[in-house]
Amino acid sequence: MDVGIVLPLVLLISVLSLVVAAFLARHVLSADTGKPEMRLISDAIREGAEAFLRRQYRTIGILAVIAAVVIFAFYFANRDVKNIAEMGAGTAWKITLSFVTGALCSAIAGYIGMFVSIRANIRAAAAAMTSLNKALQIVGFGFGASFVALFAQLGGGIYTKAADVGADLVGKVEAGIPEDDPRNPAVIADLVGDNVGDCAGRGADLFESTAAENVGAMILGIALYPVFGLGGILFPLLARAFGLIATIVGVFTVRCREDEDPMRALNRGYLVTTVIAMLGFAVAVYMLLRPVGAGGGTVHQGYLLGAGIIGILTAFAFVLITQYYTEYRYRPVREIAEASRTGPATNIISGLAVGLECTGLPVLTVSTALMASYWCGKQALGGMPGAGLYGTAIATMGMLAPCAYILAMDTFGPITDNAGGIIEMSKQPEAIRQKTDRLDAVGNTTKALTKGYAIGSAALAAFLLFRAYLDEVMKITGREMGVDLTRVPVFVGGLLGATLVFVFSALAIKAVGKAAQVVITEVRRQFKSNPGIMKGTSKPDYASCVDIVTVSALKEMVLPGLLAVLTPVVVGFSFKYLSNYGQIGAESVAALLMVGTIAGILMATVMNNGGGAWDNAKKYIESGLFKVDGQVVGKRSEAHKAAVVGDTVGDPFKDTAGPSLHVLIKLLSTITLVLAPLFIL
Amino acid sequence: MDVGIVLPLVLLISVLSLVVAAFLARHVLSADTGKPEMRLISDAIREGAEAFLRRQYRTIGILAVIAAVVIFAFYFANRDVKNIAEMGAGTAWKITLSFVTGALCSAIAGYIGMFVSIRANIRAAAAAMTSLNKALQIVGFGFGASFVALFAQLGGGIYTKAADVGADLVGKVEAGIPEDDPRNPAVIADLVGDNVGDCAGRGADLFESTAAENVGAMILGIALYPVFGLGGILFPLLARAFGLIATIVGVFTVRCREDEDPMRALNRGYLVTTVIAMLGFAVAVYMLLRPVGAGGGTVHQGYLLGAGIIGILTAFAFVLITQYYTEYRYRPVREIAEASRTGPATNIISGLAVGLECTGLPVLTVSTALMASYWCGKQALGGMPGAGLYGTAIATMGMLAPCAYILAMDTFGPITDNAGGIIEMSKQPEAIRQKTDRLDAVGNTTKALTKGYAIGSAALAAFLLFRAYLDEVMKITGREMGVDLTRVPVFVGGLLGATLVFVFSALAIKAVGKAAQVVITEVRRQFKSNPGIMKGTSKPDYASCVDIVTVSALKEMVLPGLLAVLTPVVVGFSFKYLSNYGQIGAESVAALLMVGTIAGILMATVMNNGGGAWDNAKKYIESGLFKVDGQVVGKRSEAHKAAVVGDTVGDPFKDTAGPSLHVLIKLLSTITLVLAPLFIL
Repeated sequence: MDVGIVLPLVLLISVLSLVVAAFLARHVLSADTGKPEMRLISDAIREGAEAFLRRQYRTIGILAVIAAVVIFAFYFANRDVKNIAEMGAGTAWKITLSFVTGALCSAIAGYIGMFVSIRANIRAAAAAMTSLNKALQIVGFGFGASFVALFAQLGGGIYTKAADVGADLVGKVEAGIPEDDPRNPAVIADLVGDNVGDCAGRGADLFESTAAENVGAMILGIALYPVFGLGGILFPLLARAFGLIATIVGVFTVRCREDEDPMRALNRGYLVTTVIAMLGFAVAVYMLLRPVGAGGGTVHQGYLLGAGIIGILTAFAFVLITQYYTEYRYRPVREIAEASRTGPATNIISGLAVGLECTGLPVLTVSTALMASYWCGKQALGGMPGAGLYGTAIATMGMLAPCAYILAMDTFGPITDNAGGIIEMSKQPEAIRQKTDRLDAVGNTTKALTKGYAIGSAALAAFLLFRAYLDEVMKITGREMGVDLTRVPVFVGGLLGATLVFVFSALAIKAVGKAAQVVITEVRRQFKSNPGIMKGTSKPDYASCVDIVTVSALKEMVLPGLLAVLTPVVVGFSFKYLSNYGQIGAESVAALLMVGTIAGILMATVMNNGGGAWDNAKKYIESGLFKVDGQVVGKRSEAHKAAVVGDTVGDPFKDTAGPSLHVLIKLLSTITLVLAPLFIL
Repeated sequence: MDVGIVLPLVLLISVLSLVVAAFLARHVLSADTGKPEMRLISDAIREGAEAFLRRQYRTIGILAVIAAVVIFAFYFANRDVKNIAEMGAGTAWKITLSFVTGALCSAIAGYIGMFVSIRANIRAAAAAMTSLNKALQIVGFGFGASFVALFAQLGGGIYTKAADVGADLVGKVEAGIPEDDPRNPAVIADLVGDNVGDCAGRGADLFESTAAENVGAMILGIALYPVFGLGGILFPLLARAFGLIATIVGVFTVRCREDEDPMRALNRGYLVTTVIAMLGFAVAVYMLLRPVGAGGGTVHQGYLLGAGIIGILTAFAFVLITQYYTEYRYRPVREIAEASRTGPATNIISGLAVGLECTGLPVLTVSTALMASYWCGKQALGGMPGAGLYGTAIATMGMLAPCAYILAMDTFGPITDNAGGIIEMSKQPEAIRQKTDRLDAVGNTTKALTKGYAIGSAALAAFLLFRAYLDEVMKITGREMGVDLTRVPVFVGGLLGATLVFVFSALAIKAVGKAAQVVITEVRRQFKSNPGIMKGTSKPDYASCVDIVTVSALKEMVLPGLLAVLTPVVVGFSFKYLSNYGQIGAESVAALLMVGTIAGILMATVMNNGGGAWDNAKKYIESGLFKVDGQVVGKRSEAHKAAVVGDTVGDPFKDTAGPSLHVLIKLLSTITLVLAPLFIL
């Protein structure tokens, strides 16, 4: 098959996917919207979410413009310096424009999900094909995407948990009214939060992963141009297109019988997606990764397919491992429930222990995947430079193949959460609530496993992007560069990278606390100035709560966000000027990035899974399935109170700090890429 | 001055220090031992502690013998392989003997504190002076020391917190009797725990730090033999001896007026110690680090002294930073107290945020110290190989100079804790209890800052030991070896190292939970079978509680301990045999060690300071100083209940997992040293 038809084929699949997505969306939109009182609530949520995104994008926009100006100024001021001059005329403009495009795409992805990534990726691909230098310039695209994704995830995460914790503390604890009670002025803000945090935030997050992976894989594809020709550069696009087909088929097989565990149905669809993705991968490998021209007599395609299958299986393993640690069918969550019987302290200790412990299996999985795909690459391409690395690149593509399906599962969480809230607030019958409760527990699990998947793919993608960058830098400077931890400044860079992760997490968690305090104050004010709210005779002012938490969350996202953006810049420049250490500035920043990535993977796993496990330990107790000596220990027991404490602690972990760390990892990569030439000069 | 008098001088100072220590001990022992009922309790504690140490050492002894046999077998089986054969005949015997000696010394240090380290260090020094090959063999000594220290700290840590948490949960929560109530059968076990965990554990820990530092510094001293002659090798010993003098003077200046904050008096003594240590350092530098022979015309001693002062100031900074994060005079602890007003969940969130945040300043301090002393070394020794590194070595010695004073402060904690318990149990008047309460809060702070100091010095010492080892390995293999994170297996090694820290922490925390469960069951059994205990008419069986928690803690320490010992071994060998990666096995283990060290420093800081801050937030509320709108929020308030939850959560953090991580870091270094030749073959 001629590689010339690949681009049209990818476009065709993309368009078809959009048609299917539109069809599904129409199907959803044409469904019954329920009773008028339910519609009222749902409208309020929609308005709040849109208002938040509008304001958030304005704030991010201002920060992005500042960043763009700084990037431009740096490159423009240094335009005559050798290795920037070599990148061609107008480099400053091109990189800046690329940053702005990435930022815009990420923002749009926040609105309408994954579909943009296909278009944007093709732009990046087109740029990559025309010249090698432009390939480096598209890193500006990745930086723009992660810049917006960080703030989107961070702001959304702070918003969602500030509203949640604030509403709970002032409602459940102080006023003694149940969760999602319509008398609570912060309840709409809480429901809005589910959308802006999970949907928009994770959309930007995963968009950024695929962007990073495509950039990295195509730069490697260029390096292997003598072997595969254009096929190597087009391969990531075709692999992604087949992944979309696999997802569409998988989504259509999700059918849940009334008496079936909804999670089983979702897992079945995922299995179908995985199998079809493997078949698609096989087709793509044998179609495009054929040796052409001089260098390629010794390619063993089977090993390349093997690397891809390793990636797809890694994705599958991550979903299973996360389920094990966060579902109440298994030991860890049950241990937390058991520990709740001796009070909140043992619940917290047990939850933290589960969080710390659950880093083991995912890391073993990623490590095995990296080593095995590295080996596959070496077997496939023999002694070619970068052979092992290309194996890990293909594994990363494999891992990201079912990305769209995972994102669909993720959206399940906030939808069911909102549905439950709407049912509760509009006072529907108990039987309906039980149904939404069941869906809600599943939503918790799907949210947790999407995050597990996101962090796993971030780990693989970051490593890829990083290596690709190193290769490019070597081409520019003409010098080999490793990241040798035995050199003092490099070790210090690594130490600072890991610390950045810890301090960033602290600031993200604190931001939730501060924003929640604002919610509490506002709700108290409303209760005091309008006693009719608690009596149920007058309506609370939901909009002012939404408004206040919007302003506060956006204010609080700035400090941790800037810390993340500025730390590598400060380290790079200060180490560069500290002494005549050669290219030590760039190497120290690289260590900061790599050790920061390791710490970020672990910390995010602790926070995501720990938080999910706490949440489901509470749900387990509420379900009435938790029994001690044959007696049900359920709602209103002391154990339940303890489990509520654990759930509240887990909230800013799993919905603010954890997901923001995913994006932090990728931001560190892309910011290093964009600024590295300046550290080296 | 002739270097020949240095050894006699060091011996003289050591002997004098021992005389002073004996004098102080006699002074303490000759003091009034109080009323007979107090003596009864104190005797029970002593018996329990001795019984625990006896049994613990038996368990550790068995594990150590197994380890010794394995080490011997490895080296013996490979005795004909080139780079082991080059180490001379009988290497297997020598390394094994060295391991056993280190293990014994560490065990003894657990009993009688620091004094042994002087004798043992001189042995190591003597070995180092006779030949270069023997210098590598003394790493077996370091491995033995950290092997015992790990299990001592881990077992002691599990014991102390299992007894504490168990006694609290079953006493305060279930039976509704106060803390340290003599009717609680687990109360003696709780007091025993303070001794075996803090005194014996930390003694072994800091002994191990100084052992590691001496080994590393002397290996570097050998490398600089052409410059300094014997002076470079003797320098660490003299620096240590002057540190002892500084400590003795400092200890004698600690005098507390009745109306004075005891912490101020301790800080004053520490300041005196610091100043005298600097003077001693100056004498040692100008006496011993003079250029002799051919290579040394260009030494600037002022810069070497500068590096030493950087180290001493780093130690001082660590103590101040830790006080800031754990004392209730400052913002962090007050924030936690404030957060307690909205319940246990916000208390926990706030405490975790403080823990994560407080990694920032210590890391900046260590980073600055490393970079600045590296720079000093380069300035002092010009272009000599290892010049910068020697600067960091001297800084490490500087940091460890006031070690004995810090250890004395640490012992303050369990002593005051025990004193409070004895006063409470023997029902002394309220006024006396208030005094011991005040001392107890100071004890909390001193325990926290000793740990801060221990982790800081572990960071510096580990880096030193690691570099020194790399140099030795290069001499054996004749090949340069870096630790290049951009290579896939090396990155995976680093990832696994950081994960080891997380999983080890989880296991240590869980071990506390399991052992505490055993205590709870035993206390319940006693209450049930003997109702006279609660009425106060019959005495509970303290000894059986001590016995049961001893057995359980020792059982629980085995799994995390073995995980720590076996992970580097498994990674080294499996990566070695995985493929023809050259010396990738050794390099991957080195990455495991270095990234594991970074993660360990951070995680230990989170756990130590977070735990200390929670504890003192509770103490702050109990003190009656915490006021809201002019009203005291004190004991029996809702905020106090929340703060008790935080304190309980912090216990296994700060007294089990955190301190065990210090030792884990050093164990990783020493185990790598001993086994590395086998990974390289």
